[in-house]
Amino acid sequence: MSNLDMIHAAAERLKGHVRRTPLLSSPFLDEIAGRRVLLKPECLQHTGSFKFRGGWSALSALDPDVRARGVIAFSSGNHAQGVALAARRHGTSAVIVMPSDAPKMKIDNTRALGAEVVLFDRATDDRDVIGDRLSAERNLTLIKPFDEPLVIAGQGTTGLEIAEQAAEEGLTSGDVLVPCGGGGLTSGIALALEAHAPDMQVRPIEPEEFDDVARSLKSGKIERNDRLSGSLCDAIITPACGDLTFPIMKRLCGAGIVVTEEEALRAVALAFSRLKIVVEPGGAVALAAALFHGNQIKGDAVIVVASGGNIDADVFRKALEPHSE
Amino acid sequence: MSNLDMIHAAAERLKGHVRRTPLLSSPFLDEIAGRRVLLKPECLQHTGSFKFRGGWSALSALDPDVRARGVIAFSSGNHAQGVALAARRHGTSAVIVMPSDAPKMKIDNTRALGAEVVLFDRATDDRDVIGDRLSAERNLTLIKPFDEPLVIAGQGTTGLEIAEQAAEEGLTSGDVLVPCGGGGLTSGIALALEAHAPDMQVRPIEPEEFDDVARSLKSGKIERNDRLSGSLCDAIITPACGDLTFPIMKRLCGAGIVVTEEEALRAVALAFSRLKIVVEPGGAVALAAALFHGNQIKGDAVIVVASGGNIDADVFRKALEPHSE
Repeated sequence: MSNLDMIHAAAERLKGHVRRTPLLSSPFLDEIAGRRVLLKPECLQHTGSFKFRGGWSALSALDPDVRARGVIAFSSGNHAQGVALAARRHGTSAVIVMPSDAPKMKIDNTRALGAEVVLFDRATDDRDVIGDRLSAERNLTLIKPFDEPLVIAGQGTTGLEIAEQAAEEGLTSGDVLVPCGGGGLTSGIALALEAHAPDMQVRPIEPEEFDDVARSLKSGKIERNDRLSGSLCDAIITPACGDLTFPIMKRLCGAGIVVTEEEALRAVALAFSRLKIVVEPGGAVALAAALFHGNQIKGDAVIVVASGGNIDADVFRKALEPHSE
Repeated sequence: MSNLDMIHAAAERLKGHVRRTPLLSSPFLDEIAGRRVLLKPECLQHTGSFKFRGGWSALSALDPDVRARGVIAFSSGNHAQGVALAARRHGTSAVIVMPSDAPKMKIDNTRALGAEVVLFDRATDDRDVIGDRLSAERNLTLIKPFDEPLVIAGQGTTGLEIAEQAAEEGLTSGDVLVPCGGGGLTSGIALALEAHAPDMQVRPIEPEEFDDVARSLKSGKIERNDRLSGSLCDAIITPACGDLTFPIMKRLCGAGIVVTEEEALRAVALAFSRLKIVVEPGGAVALAAALFHGNQIKGDAVIVVASGGNIDADVFRKALEPHSE
């Protein structure tokens, strides 16, 4: 089955289970950006991020006997919740291996969604050893966060919706800015648009100092991040993109755009005041690029994805602070 | 034309101009409520509230020559913005008469949307005298906030969407909780559901001490509020409901439910953490009723409308404060 066929098949399996998020806009954001801005709020997706699409896509494609034995995933947050809810709604169990320093809210939510959370210490434990042991003991199926065709196909359904909804708004070309960690969402959307909106071009957006994909697209080979912590944009921080996602991005994506953490927080505040949505810093980098790096974008309209909204209340309050009116 | 025909006609005029907001839900909210909760986020509507529907409905139905002379509206906030944007998109002018103590953000937004804002002093000026003079001098058409058939019809399109979207979720009966000020949204939705989901019943929701509609439905005649200020739920505080809206609510609505301001703020915080949307206190009263007054509701599912999201950053930060994790 081709990549595109896999996305269409995923869309069929997702129907009635995954939320079709709308396209939002505000004349105030258009004015800041100097062009029309259409935003796809995947923060409104079940579990607060696009990750539920990939989780559902992978779980729903498993052989029922295999699925009944349970699944396992590694994640510090959004993938954890997406897989946990997808497992629960499929009537099976999920083990999520999470670092003990993950945001408490994300650990609590994952547990509350019915998953068994196994914590490990980043400094002393080997995550993969723990995972391998659990998988072997219980015969669990691993759901990778991005470098997995079924997951890429699930995230790609976001692109099918973008093509359709943008056309309804009279838009068939231009840049599509996507927050990029491992590249599952970015490559999935790029594949969907290649077929359904070939005049649109996906641009991966990353925070400063964690711009491995922008560098990889420049050098032509997979580059890595020097460090993995210390960013408010935790949702999109990965060591490097995937062996499956990179070739897709290399073939289909335009140059990456890098934003500062401060710009991401300003985008969080503007999404609050102008769109009435809650976006986490990592999910707001594409909006930040549209608003504050317009010189790197072409066309009189731009589409941006807000990939998630799982932000702690105190970080959100901080983001609103300097912008209070 | 019947009330229902007017709603269908409004829906035709609104098509492509008004956002079709989705139905949102969260297993966490279902658990608190003890039943399924489906929420219609009109905070995601253009200008951040359902008021744009009524504004567009009224403006789009005017004779083009009449419309070209401009419109006028009285409002301290959401109706102001809805009429301002509807006027701008129709290429005409709007004069909005606002109290000088209205939230600065709402005054600024109304101006930024192209309207001419005329401020008056609640203590010393007579709003109606100012409005009458302006209307007469410039031959402007008054767009009333709720007691106007075209406005009720516009708000009623929310009900058409609820009937359709709830049916997609397998829901055709139960209570529909609606934040209620003058009753335009409440009566409009009730009319739409009477025809399209007759087993659903609209319940008006109000904040404590401003529960004129709950009292009116009990006594059978229009009751008034003792005071008009001092509530964080400013968006839904009116002296009394309308001569047109009351008979509709009396005929079609179930008993009102009254929530405290504290409950409204808790609902604001839960809409933030569980649905990733920004709701203002007045817009959150229906969610508060679903979450904290479930004993007054029947059925295993409830639909709630979040009517607006125009909240100042400092009030929002305050709402999140005690609930920070």
